[in-house]
Amino acid sequence: LQPPGTGSRGRSGDLKPEEIVRLEEDRVVLLDQRRLPDEEVELECRSAAEVAEAIRAMAVRGAPAIGIAAAYGYALAAERGEDLDEAAAVLLASRPTAVNLAWAIAELRKADDPRACAREIHLQEIDRCRRMAEHAAGLVEPGARPLTHCNTGGLATGGYGTALGAIRAAFAQSLVEHVLVTETRPLLQGGRLTAWELDRVGIPSSVIADSAAGSFMGRGEVTHVFTGADRIAANGDTANKIGTYALAVLAAHHEIPFYIVAPSSTVDLATPTGAEIPIEERDPSEVTPRFPARNPAFDVTPAALIGAIVTEAGVHRAPYEESLSRPTPAGAAR
Amino acid sequence: LQPPGTGSRGRSGDLKPEEIVRLEEDRVVLLDQRRLPDEEVELECRSAAEVAEAIRAMAVRGAPAIGIAAAYGYALAAERGEDLDEAAAVLLASRPTAVNLAWAIAELRKADDPRACAREIHLQEIDRCRRMAEHAAGLVEPGARPLTHCNTGGLATGGYGTALGAIRAAFAQSLVEHVLVTETRPLLQGGRLTAWELDRVGIPSSVIADSAAGSFMGRGEVTHVFTGADRIAANGDTANKIGTYALAVLAAHHEIPFYIVAPSSTVDLATPTGAEIPIEERDPSEVTPRFPARNPAFDVTPAALIGAIVTEAGVHRAPYEESLSRPTPAGAAR
Repeated sequence: LQPPGTGSRGRSGDLKPEEIVRLEEDRVVLLDQRRLPDEEVELECRSAAEVAEAIRAMAVRGAPAIGIAAAYGYALAAERGEDLDEAAAVLLASRPTAVNLAWAIAELRKADDPRACAREIHLQEIDRCRRMAEHAAGLVEPGARPLTHCNTGGLATGGYGTALGAIRAAFAQSLVEHVLVTETRPLLQGGRLTAWELDRVGIPSSVIADSAAGSFMGRGEVTHVFTGADRIAANGDTANKIGTYALAVLAAHHEIPFYIVAPSSTVDLATPTGAEIPIEERDPSEVTPRFPARNPAFDVTPAALIGAIVTEAGVHRAPYEESLSRPTPAGAAR
Repeated sequence: LQPPGTGSRGRSGDLKPEEIVRLEEDRVVLLDQRRLPDEEVELECRSAAEVAEAIRAMAVRGAPAIGIAAAYGYALAAERGEDLDEAAAVLLASRPTAVNLAWAIAELRKADDPRACAREIHLQEIDRCRRMAEHAAGLVEPGARPLTHCNTGGLATGGYGTALGAIRAAFAQSLVEHVLVTETRPLLQGGRLTAWELDRVGIPSSVIADSAAGSFMGRGEVTHVFTGADRIAANGDTANKIGTYALAVLAAHHEIPFYIVAPSSTVDLATPTGAEIPIEERDPSEVTPRFPARNPAFDVTPAALIGAIVTEAGVHRAPYEESLSRPTPAGAAR
């Protein structure tokens, strides 16, 4: 990872990995995503429990970034001499849906050098992002007007991004004209974070209300839908931010390709189908503090609605039971 | 209309029509819907231009309520000796999509006694609501868990409501268990106004993010979708609050009946299809003040996705060209 203050990768304005999350001598430091874009404030976590609380409260969110933050939190706990069973348990309990968290903790528990292992996980996730983005960009034709949901950029992954990385790679190849960003209620990860990231790197975009996505599809203003994933079951069923399922149904209705872009750390072959993925219900007051509300944070999109799942290994097509279980999918270059 | 302070209709907490909008001696007074549910504040409009501004700024909204407010505004203009061509023009220009506005102004321009005509329009809209609600309740089976979008209650209609009136009538017949209310971004008419109205009359409900509607349908938690309308074309294509189209597509995907409930004043036989309905684009800063955004206020749901259009005359079924042009639809009782 580059030290703070040195040149960013490529375009000015691109977020540096260490700006998003890093392990210092005695603390995990992360950009508090709850306060973006209005304020760029760092949050310091001095124990595994504080990292877990930052994840629970969504100061850091996005499946890969959660895994990275948890890895740094576990490494911090190891160096501080915390009870590591307890540290692992508190980190694992912070959010239930994203599988990257469990994956990262399992990697750390095997490691001789937790700090080096956590940094390696961070670097590998960024490398995976760049590789999956190149694969996914191959699915895009010139003049593309993709729609994306939630935030799957550098903030969500520790650098570069999954679905947003794919859009960035396609834009760099002059394939993308404009990006529609669903604001992603209740916490507005699209309207706050994705719009901010696209603005920083100069990609033309417009934020829309989540409810408007279908209408823009009906008007012919959406050529592709790209989203990330919080957990992908062995059969391809994919849990992702609430609203993803509706976008997949709407995309199918309009015959618009719908693609998932996520690292292999998000694929959970131990979960056979989406029915077995736990769906987090968050505090209803995030929706409205005044009236009764329901606030599922995720939904499950059935594999049948997914045109392709793109990982760093390539472009996985149905039947996903087969393509996800192979190290390199057939026809990766489409 | 009942004078302020006298008994409300039925349940305690029901909004009285004159609380929503009324014409006093020298002003139109309306409950400022922008400030609900936090504050119940009245807005006073002392000219047609001030009424038009209240409509434009959505202090009063909902197609029938816009028509009623415009009628009172025109009557006020007539009594004040305003230039009535100008008064009509400024009211008509306030919002483009709802046809009730044009309909109400046309009624007023023919009237000998504008004040009496405006009151009559208000009373008639409430009477229409009660009749369409009874027709629509006939579409509901016991144990219903309807979903509704935006606000179509008394606030939207001058009293009782259209789609929400239907749900109220069905609830009164013990047919409704629970109502899901989409919050309806960007202005939250569902989360602020519909939730408030349902709370006042004691109907169990939960607010959800707009993006969650598809997920709740997929879980089997939605039995019917009821929405209002801002303009219904002769062929049944229906303009309504942004997000209605997506709900109709999602309902069709899940084989959930999707019904429009609206007065005949919302049917515009002079508009052949939805393609001819003007769609208002509102200030993008309503979505986000910080980044580029798109903010269409309405969308058009094609007739093919609409299971029935319920007016005060009865239950209209496809083909709508025929059923909407008849005074009383065949098979009104389903």
